[in-house]
Amino acid sequence: MLVVPGGMYGHMSTAALPADYPQYFTRAEAARLWDADGRPYVDFMSAFGANLLGYGHPIVEEAVRSQARLGDTMTGPAPVMVSLAERFVEMIDSAAWAMFCKNGTDATSMAVVTARAATGRRKILVGRGAYHGAANWCTPNPAGILPEDRAHIYYYRSQDPQSLADAMRDCAGDVAAVIATPFRHETFRDQTEPDAAFAREARRLCDAAGAMLILDEVRAGFRLARRSAWADFGVAPDLIAFGKAIGNGHPISALLGAEHLRAAARSIYVTGSYWFSAAPMAAALATLGEIASSDYLERTAARGRELRDGLASLTRAYGFGLRQTGPVEMPQMLFDDDDDLTTGSAFCGAMVRRGIILHPYHNMFVSPALTDADMELTLEAAAQAFAEIASGAARRAAEPDTALGSRRRHAVAMDA
Amino acid sequence: MLVVPGGMYGHMSTAALPADYPQYFTRAEAARLWDADGRPYVDFMSAFGANLLGYGHPIVEEAVRSQARLGDTMTGPAPVMVSLAERFVEMIDSAAWAMFCKNGTDATSMAVVTARAATGRRKILVGRGAYHGAANWCTPNPAGILPEDRAHIYYYRSQDPQSLADAMRDCAGDVAAVIATPFRHETFRDQTEPDAAFAREARRLCDAAGAMLILDEVRAGFRLARRSAWADFGVAPDLIAFGKAIGNGHPISALLGAEHLRAAARSIYVTGSYWFSAAPMAAALATLGEIASSDYLERTAARGRELRDGLASLTRAYGFGLRQTGPVEMPQMLFDDDDDLTTGSAFCGAMVRRGIILHPYHNMFVSPALTDADMELTLEAAAQAFAEIASGAARRAAEPDTALGSRRRHAVAMDA
Repeated sequence: MLVVPGGMYGHMSTAALPADYPQYFTRAEAARLWDADGRPYVDFMSAFGANLLGYGHPIVEEAVRSQARLGDTMTGPAPVMVSLAERFVEMIDSAAWAMFCKNGTDATSMAVVTARAATGRRKILVGRGAYHGAANWCTPNPAGILPEDRAHIYYYRSQDPQSLADAMRDCAGDVAAVIATPFRHETFRDQTEPDAAFAREARRLCDAAGAMLILDEVRAGFRLARRSAWADFGVAPDLIAFGKAIGNGHPISALLGAEHLRAAARSIYVTGSYWFSAAPMAAALATLGEIASSDYLERTAARGRELRDGLASLTRAYGFGLRQTGPVEMPQMLFDDDDDLTTGSAFCGAMVRRGIILHPYHNMFVSPALTDADMELTLEAAAQAFAEIASGAARRAAEPDTALGSRRRHAVAMDA
Repeated sequence: MLVVPGGMYGHMSTAALPADYPQYFTRAEAARLWDADGRPYVDFMSAFGANLLGYGHPIVEEAVRSQARLGDTMTGPAPVMVSLAERFVEMIDSAAWAMFCKNGTDATSMAVVTARAATGRRKILVGRGAYHGAANWCTPNPAGILPEDRAHIYYYRSQDPQSLADAMRDCAGDVAAVIATPFRHETFRDQTEPDAAFAREARRLCDAAGAMLILDEVRAGFRLARRSAWADFGVAPDLIAFGKAIGNGHPISALLGAEHLRAAARSIYVTGSYWFSAAPMAAALATLGEIASSDYLERTAARGRELRDGLASLTRAYGFGLRQTGPVEMPQMLFDDDDDLTTGSAFCGAMVRRGIILHPYHNMFVSPALTDADMELTLEAAAQAFAEIASGAARRAAEPDTALGSRRRHAVAMDA
């Protein structure tokens, strides 16, 4: 009998992926993973974004080992907590303070509670289909969730200024906050790029209503910019949630806030057994150091561009309509006329059998640790995979996953 | 300007503790901590329970380093996840499966969602004042929390069978679960011992109502027994939340469930960026190994007994009424006629100035890594501290903390 329900749960479950996806990994290095049979893979998922600089980054790992030798989870934090908060506040213009937690969900949920505490209002405007974590107010699956958990969650159409304005009017007088991701990076959907018009309108509407603007950078943070993704637009969110990338694989997330929310942040009670552990904070401080001083961002974009261009030219050659959307650093790939993801699953299955981990419906995370050899292997495998699925063999072999088709239909319906 | 709101937040904040408590630590080893000025302390808090075997336990740390060298946070879990789930299921009679998460709050919240998914009912019966984490449904501080967040939380008097029976009747037909800690270990309150009568009545009432029994072992797990704290009573909870101790300071919590809840557990969507990280799972597997094979439990109890007996004899000598309650492994110390905690704060302040970390209103966590020298230092310091506060000097020096007095009054009022 399986000792984990369903064999695996959560976002890393391969249950909806082609059968050849490895569920377990035994080793990670740079942009490579090895499965339980010792098979190597070039990985374009980067631990679903929890890794930013490459697996086993020497500077980050040395910072972790040094701190861990001294002390990690103690009866209080280590001084590195203050250094890390100072560093964040330096890097993120709109932030005057930082609070650290573990899960991305912790940070987004803490932002919601902070906004409600500050405003004394109830409504949180959430982009329909945008993912802000797995808590009751936001988990995409309603099992075990009560209507009351979302009584004051009001949905707008993601990244749509008019829909946000309508929502703001519908909830006039009771809007605590608007929460948004920096661009649309939802599963099963084409992505967008960060959009100045939406960002500015969100800020303007919040200012007019006295509502807080929460930017959820858990997934995209530091992947597109060395500061907040909306900083280039001159848009300063009141609260920014970071996670994933910031510890380069070590468990830490963060909520950053504006000065005027300091008292509200102080008034709420949020905590966790390991929130003050020092080793992940040392990892984050080292990661922020690499973010500031290395060319990781340019290397990530260059590899993302190589992947996109390489696949585009292969799809032209093999006659596939592949939509590669969103920033090149976080590519989404969906095939035309493939609502049930038959082609996407066949392609990703053919790739994984060739040792390349892509994803058929979730955005990917390009690693700056990808080597020339990794890219060559990837594009060679892609040529073979397109040839294979063009022949139709793989398409027939990959039986349509009805559960997946149903999830996609659900996601699309959610957005309607 | 402080880069962390209020300087610190959550359960490790020293804001309500005597002024001499160190907020930051630079080093940890066995049962000792060192503060930012290099001052050593004997620590009776064990990272608020997140450490079970002593800081820097060599077997646990080696397991972590070995796994981390191979891979930690990857695009999926490592095989150690399965080994860990198997080990938990072996050790906990009532459990057929395990799911891992990060915070204790994750595990208790996941238990609530699982129970609601399984039963299709809404009400969760919660012992008033019992702490099940810092999520909206359970955080002890109402700032930023809505009435709807607790619309279906119904309170009974902790560990009181009659009160639970009344609550069950009040919510008849709609009770998804009863949640309880194995004994009463609330802040500002005398503790109880695990109580067979309550445990059995909770099980009987849940069976009669078709409700799930959730045991919250996050704080007490593996501190009193090598299996569930209610196993000796023959009481099998449907769901058990573990955290803190299980990774000996490495970030992992767990929900264990009975076979009949497997489908419900599979139906919910819960996840976190670092829930599948391998190094903390390796830590937990090594910790469970030590739990099974070492005498840590007997050593913990022996040190707890030494502390209790030593302090009891000093309080007799110095004429203080000190209530030492709860299991010796998790002692609570409250002075008689000390509702505003003036004496408790003075005593703990006098102790911390002598290099001993106790807590004036939260249960402590005795470490099996305490040495004879640590215990001698502790009891010598206690003799001096009692002498000092008996003289009244310290009592006057420790100005009554009105915020603390108010928190205690709030806690007591909550229980009424």
